[in-house]
Amino acid sequence: MSIEKLVRKELTGEIRRSATRRRVAAAPGTISLAAGDPNFLLPDYIAKTVYDAICEGKTHYCFGGEPTLRDALVKYYSKYGYEAQPGQIAITGGGSQSLFQAYAAILNSGEEGITFDPAYGGGRRPLGFFGVKTVYADMKKTDGQFRPDLEALKEAISPKTKSLYIDNPGNPSGAVFTKEELKGIADLAVDHDFVVVSDETYSEFCWDGTKHEALITYPGMENRTIVCMAFTKMYSWAGMRTGWIVSGPEMAPYVGRAPGSAVSWPIQLGAVKAMTDGYEYVVAIKKEYEERIDYGVKRLNEMPGVSCKKPEGAFYLFPDITGTTLSSNDFVLKLAEEEAVRIVSGAGYGPGAAEGHVRLSMIRPLSTQKMPGWFKNEPDTCFEAAMDRVERFVKKYQK
Amino acid sequence: MSIEKLVRKELTGEIRRSATRRRVAAAPGTISLAAGDPNFLLPDYIAKTVYDAICEGKTHYCFGGEPTLRDALVKYYSKYGYEAQPGQIAITGGGSQSLFQAYAAILNSGEEGITFDPAYGGGRRPLGFFGVKTVYADMKKTDGQFRPDLEALKEAISPKTKSLYIDNPGNPSGAVFTKEELKGIADLAVDHDFVVVSDETYSEFCWDGTKHEALITYPGMENRTIVCMAFTKMYSWAGMRTGWIVSGPEMAPYVGRAPGSAVSWPIQLGAVKAMTDGYEYVVAIKKEYEERIDYGVKRLNEMPGVSCKKPEGAFYLFPDITGTTLSSNDFVLKLAEEEAVRIVSGAGYGPGAAEGHVRLSMIRPLSTQKMPGWFKNEPDTCFEAAMDRVERFVKKYQK
Repeated sequence: MSIEKLVRKELTGEIRRSATRRRVAAAPGTISLAAGDPNFLLPDYIAKTVYDAICEGKTHYCFGGEPTLRDALVKYYSKYGYEAQPGQIAITGGGSQSLFQAYAAILNSGEEGITFDPAYGGGRRPLGFFGVKTVYADMKKTDGQFRPDLEALKEAISPKTKSLYIDNPGNPSGAVFTKEELKGIADLAVDHDFVVVSDETYSEFCWDGTKHEALITYPGMENRTIVCMAFTKMYSWAGMRTGWIVSGPEMAPYVGRAPGSAVSWPIQLGAVKAMTDGYEYVVAIKKEYEERIDYGVKRLNEMPGVSCKKPEGAFYLFPDITGTTLSSNDFVLKLAEEEAVRIVSGAGYGPGAAEGHVRLSMIRPLSTQKMPGWFKNEPDTCFEAAMDRVERFVKKYQK
Repeated sequence: MSIEKLVRKELTGEIRRSATRRRVAAAPGTISLAAGDPNFLLPDYIAKTVYDAICEGKTHYCFGGEPTLRDALVKYYSKYGYEAQPGQIAITGGGSQSLFQAYAAILNSGEEGITFDPAYGGGRRPLGFFGVKTVYADMKKTDGQFRPDLEALKEAISPKTKSLYIDNPGNPSGAVFTKEELKGIADLAVDHDFVVVSDETYSEFCWDGTKHEALITYPGMENRTIVCMAFTKMYSWAGMRTGWIVSGPEMAPYVGRAPGSAVSWPIQLGAVKAMTDGYEYVVAIKKEYEERIDYGVKRLNEMPGVSCKKPEGAFYLFPDITGTTLSSNDFVLKLAEEEAVRIVSGAGYGPGAAEGHVRLSMIRPLSTQKMPGWFKNEPDTCFEAAMDRVERFVKKYQK
């Protein structure tokens, strides 16, 4: 028997079920700035709400999802200027599931899906499952900030183009797409008849007055935009697994028929609580992130051979390390080996447009963190300590 | 813009995302025996375990699933004579998600998937998503019991056959597949090189000494069987959404790379608790179900024009109603209209091999139910009351 004869063949490119990634045990004392896993504990009232839901028997089928959660999500997204009907919301099992379900609504094998480089890998991984080829459009670095490049995007478009993935705000780019950029993307989508999978997971995290704009509100985009959202970052909800999709009234039935996971009903009720009473918590998280970002940007720019623009959005630093003697990959490997700090290579967010950059996730507390954190708040594993190690490392490898 | 140009075309047959089914408001006073949603409340210690998990920060990524849950599932399934390695277990977001992920590991468009008639519709619905044609093999009624018919199965096999779905114990058939039947299925799978998606959701529910046998232990079947399981029925866990897959060591990586949903980590920890300390609860549920089944079978057989064999497994009654003047569909519609009892037509479990049968789910308490229930335990909506209504109805329509 050959197992290859029994399994699905319609696969191209990179396939990885990110949820199956196993944690690799790091060396003792390692400080990880690698994953995008917010380090905060959830407020007590979330645990209490879930507890009550289980005790009250909200442990049975909840076909179609908890209606009050849909209502809360409609209300939430209206702050970006789009008033959906509850039927336009699909509740999913987290950000990755939102992306899979979005693609499942639209893709056929033999088509092409575009993604920017650098962009979150989860935006391209489902393409392979559908036998769809990933085509890359390089971002352009302008004034220290990677931004979507409409010319590169135009070149990436072919008659087979079915989808474009954007992450806005961008991970790892930190770009918050401007009105002009979104208008350009919308015009291309309409002209060339493709769908934009708009990953807006980080919409709450915009810094220094940048403002998150909703692509779905742009002319011609209502039934051409599948907005993928998650509680993961906004509410430090990663392991709770809750996401959602907004799509236009014509597209929504197709998103709804795509195979999706249902979310535990008690967890959905926790999410309603978060959406209703939890915004203070989001504000507190944002404050912590911005303090870390400001601290990290300052520290990195003081290091020889490193420059770092403050991101416009999301909570990653994406410094340029071309002033060192190391490639992105070597920088990451050697930093882990020599200083026990884990970060991510920028070269992995596509074929390599972001070579010379590394990503640092702001998931370690400053020693002054005021909120209860998940990771142990020991001074020697705080963000300051990580930056001390990075600085010592960079000095060793400066050009 | 035409939405059809934008959406996925590779769809055949029936597509429905069961999780999006909306509850249709029933007439006041309606007693539903329709859904397979166990009516029991969960034990308090499950709520407490989930609560503690959230408070302790088990709300972050749990890549690959909770290891202690995999270990518990390996241990559980070993009671059927198969010792898996933890890596052979995939944790899924419930029974439907188990089925989708099983098919996602193996199917290519243009292939064929076989299912028995009658069988659970969730076993064929994902086929359409993959552009795979559903082929039916009729079950055969022997001594009042629908059973898999190996001759009909043989006829359904073609060179395009990639999968066979079996539900064992069967919903709605109530069949617990015998060793001989499983051996016959295994031989055909090996000879014709297809995979069996073995839905063993009801494995705990075997009555009168029938014994659940694990197809994966049969010669040649280890990497040809994808065992789909769920906590849904076993632990009254429907809305908590937790399922799992067991597959052979060669097949498991393909199951693992299929897009799956991750389950909320706190819920996974609740499932560990259920698996470790919850068997007493399962035993109590089983006792309740069997009391209901015995009561229901007795009542139905006392009705003119109705005959009902006690099921070998699962918790559905599947009486023959051909002694009435009604088709299965009419029986169900008129019973809902005239007596406000909801049940399911047997004709819907395939093209119609089970015409003349209807399914009653044992989800209403007897008035003497001892366990805390989710549905209100009012005497006028208990199972006895439902059977009184069915009896009155049947008398009106006897031949």
